[in-house]
Amino acid sequence: PLKPHPQRNGSERNPGAAPPRLPFSRVTREDLAFFRTLLPGRTITDPDLLKSSNVDWLKTVEGNSEVLLRPKTTEEVSQILRHCNERNLAVCPQGGNTGLVGGSVPVFDEIILSTSLMNQVITFDNISGILTCQAGCVLENLSNYLEERDFIMPLDLGAKGSCHIGGNVSTNAGGLRLLRYGSLRGTVLGLEVVLADGRILNCLATLRKDNTGYDLKQLFIGSEGTLGVITAVSILCPRKPKAVNVAFLGCSSFQQLLETFQCCRGMLGEILSAFEFFDASCMSLLEKHLKLTNPITESPFYIVIETAGSNATHDEEKLHKFLEEVMTSSLVTDGTVATEATKIKALWSLRERVTEALTHEGYTYKYDISLPVEKIYDLVQDMRGHLGDMAKNVVGYGHVGDGNLHLNITSPSKDPALLAAIEPYVYEWTSEWKGSISAEHGLGLKKRNYIYYSKPSEAVALMGSIKAMLDPKGILNPYKTLPDNIH
Amino acid sequence: PLKPHPQRNGSERNPGAAPPRLPFSRVTREDLAFFRTLLPGRTITDPDLLKSSNVDWLKTVEGNSEVLLRPKTTEEVSQILRHCNERNLAVCPQGGNTGLVGGSVPVFDEIILSTSLMNQVITFDNISGILTCQAGCVLENLSNYLEERDFIMPLDLGAKGSCHIGGNVSTNAGGLRLLRYGSLRGTVLGLEVVLADGRILNCLATLRKDNTGYDLKQLFIGSEGTLGVITAVSILCPRKPKAVNVAFLGCSSFQQLLETFQCCRGMLGEILSAFEFFDASCMSLLEKHLKLTNPITESPFYIVIETAGSNATHDEEKLHKFLEEVMTSSLVTDGTVATEATKIKALWSLRERVTEALTHEGYTYKYDISLPVEKIYDLVQDMRGHLGDMAKNVVGYGHVGDGNLHLNITSPSKDPALLAAIEPYVYEWTSEWKGSISAEHGLGLKKRNYIYYSKPSEAVALMGSIKAMLDPKGILNPYKTLPDNIH
Repeated sequence: PLKPHPQRNGSERNPGAAPPRLPFSRVTREDLAFFRTLLPGRTITDPDLLKSSNVDWLKTVEGNSEVLLRPKTTEEVSQILRHCNERNLAVCPQGGNTGLVGGSVPVFDEIILSTSLMNQVITFDNISGILTCQAGCVLENLSNYLEERDFIMPLDLGAKGSCHIGGNVSTNAGGLRLLRYGSLRGTVLGLEVVLADGRILNCLATLRKDNTGYDLKQLFIGSEGTLGVITAVSILCPRKPKAVNVAFLGCSSFQQLLETFQCCRGMLGEILSAFEFFDASCMSLLEKHLKLTNPITESPFYIVIETAGSNATHDEEKLHKFLEEVMTSSLVTDGTVATEATKIKALWSLRERVTEALTHEGYTYKYDISLPVEKIYDLVQDMRGHLGDMAKNVVGYGHVGDGNLHLNITSPSKDPALLAAIEPYVYEWTSEWKGSISAEHGLGLKKRNYIYYSKPSEAVALMGSIKAMLDPKGILNPYKTLPDNIH
Repeated sequence: PLKPHPQRNGSERNPGAAPPRLPFSRVTREDLAFFRTLLPGRTITDPDLLKSSNVDWLKTVEGNSEVLLRPKTTEEVSQILRHCNERNLAVCPQGGNTGLVGGSVPVFDEIILSTSLMNQVITFDNISGILTCQAGCVLENLSNYLEERDFIMPLDLGAKGSCHIGGNVSTNAGGLRLLRYGSLRGTVLGLEVVLADGRILNCLATLRKDNTGYDLKQLFIGSEGTLGVITAVSILCPRKPKAVNVAFLGCSSFQQLLETFQCCRGMLGEILSAFEFFDASCMSLLEKHLKLTNPITESPFYIVIETAGSNATHDEEKLHKFLEEVMTSSLVTDGTVATEATKIKALWSLRERVTEALTHEGYTYKYDISLPVEKIYDLVQDMRGHLGDMAKNVVGYGHVGDGNLHLNITSPSKDPALLAAIEPYVYEWTSEWKGSISAEHGLGLKKRNYIYYSKPSEAVALMGSIKAMLDPKGILNPYKTLPDNIH
């Protein structure tokens, strides 16, 4: 049975469209003078310098902000927000600007508050593995910092070279290691957050356990900057595994892929750290646009399996037994294994660069769906049938271990007729199977009005109450996450 | 530097004391008639039957409720709360009543809402391992149900034979497997909750990933029934490990115990599922009161290490290498290993029954502290010096892997002078080392006014706003979790 989705305020016809501008103040000369005194040389108004901050990575959403602020300290963020809240100026917090749902760029003229200069590690405890750092640290820089100390970050994703840890936490990023290390709701131990009115909320604990009152930090994980600006993070980091292996396999059907997954969980057990897949269409795009080479014979489906463990001999033995099993039972048609870092990286890049390959196809309609794992590829096949020749390409890839499909539909350029054929069809399909219409990307601007496909209206109303409580003027990342009838 | 702890409303002098009764209505004959119509035969008013529900497991806190309600369905819980909210009747939700901070019994005459008849498994998916069940399922029953299906619960604790999963989630229970499977904030995938006014909030998702709006379920995890009554839970369950081993070891100093832990994490890595400790005083109590036998030579410290993995040969090899290392380097003085279920259970029961042994000592002052792991036993030793002959026994045990100490101080009977010597000393000590004054037990009635030792006042104020938003009349579990100046 389909969930109701009571969009109002004119959003019924085109729930993906931009909403009307809310009555925030405009930035005045006095405001600029205040910012320039607070952030000398870090108050950017040059339109050329602002350009890349006004548009998202996919170049599908563009705002018109005239001010970019680059604070270095929590105190500066606090003063900025206090001023903006008093003056009723809207603010768009921005990390690495790698989001895929238009959550990290302004919709109109919101002031962009960038965390790019808040990039310091504060402390690292090499006994407990607890890292505390500013929100603007780039994920890959943190990974490198930790690798030198024999630890790793509990999350990894394709955008690691640009994304900020504060943005990762604000969007509750999933990525490639969730299967093994769990979600940020478990690994983030503490947050420092500046609230809309400039109050600093210090919940920057570095404890694995703390049951003293409500866990306020959870409100800010995954709320996409609409409830507060995360300025610092403490996070529990796993030890660097002593042995890492990657297997790249081909399967002739999705059913066989699922059986391979079941077999893999049983035989690799606790050393399994990733089970990812992409389809043959993705491989074609990798070959065509990025000149990558398929390391095995052509197959309808490709799998990347990673193991991470503490004993190389044991891990290889487990992996080889598993490979023997899936080869002899013909679940897998061909495969290759890597234990050496360069080759591991090369195999991973096939999976990680699918998103990039897609950007060369023209316009991409992106969907990030959670479903019961048995159903995830049915949606791709159903969509191919449903769209026929209208779409250039319908491809599927994602995180099998998490039941998370990235469904991508390409077209030479933006195509309203194609969009109308995809939506709400894709959301209705997902809702019918009790899936999530945003598994890990968040709702941002693009998906905000589709929230009712995955959440009951009582829940959305309560989200609105929380927003009103923490940000009564609605200055923080307006037009994002919550549907138009709530803003 | 000590945190401020601005208790008001007369609680400065004795912050552990019961607060004055708030002006809730008294239960009338009409209320009872309503309950009896709604819950025929399940509206309990017989004082004898109410007795065990009015007093906590430790027999340290006792209420005077005259009504115990035993709903079977969410709809019944909804109708109860709607009625109570309209009538301004206070409600104390109760699961297995195994809590240690007086959170699960009424303080005055609150109506007890028991989940004991809400004990049905709703669904279990043996591909994903996702279990959905009513809140009143006993943890051990769920464990047995899952074991038959080759899965396990992601949490385990000494009270498993009585505690309810709803209570576990409401208190964000930690327990013995947290080191391996993480906290309930990561493993709980969905909740159904009845709000104070009777509205049913259905967030009972069964997806590993879902980033559609704010994660409302987190508000109810660990809020001890003060924001809503959890009626159903969906939770991600790990596969049953193919091999389990337990090692029981002795150490001659806490420093050596810590070095053993570091060595263990390196050598056992991903198969380590628990690292627990207790001291020689605990062992004496186990021998004296429960007639348990120490399986190894006497030592100042005892360790229980559990491994859980997918390959018995590999696991035993890792464990033996580790044991060889810690024996030859003299980190460990003596030890024994179990691979067989009965012996494993016997070794575990030494650790699990310390709490029970303590109840035979007279009155026990219990503290559940998180600290940087290097510091956890310093607190026990410091406390022994500080209290001298005033205490009968000062013992320490707990979860080394989580930096979680259970500090227990016994006395022949309640002793105000002893209490005055312990508190606020123990909280100041913890605060000075940035620890948590309640790692996993919650605040309940007993610790509510000490929250400021672990949380800044801005955070506590925000908790008060959340409480006011969700339960404006304050009927849900009053006098618990939040300090008196917030109620």
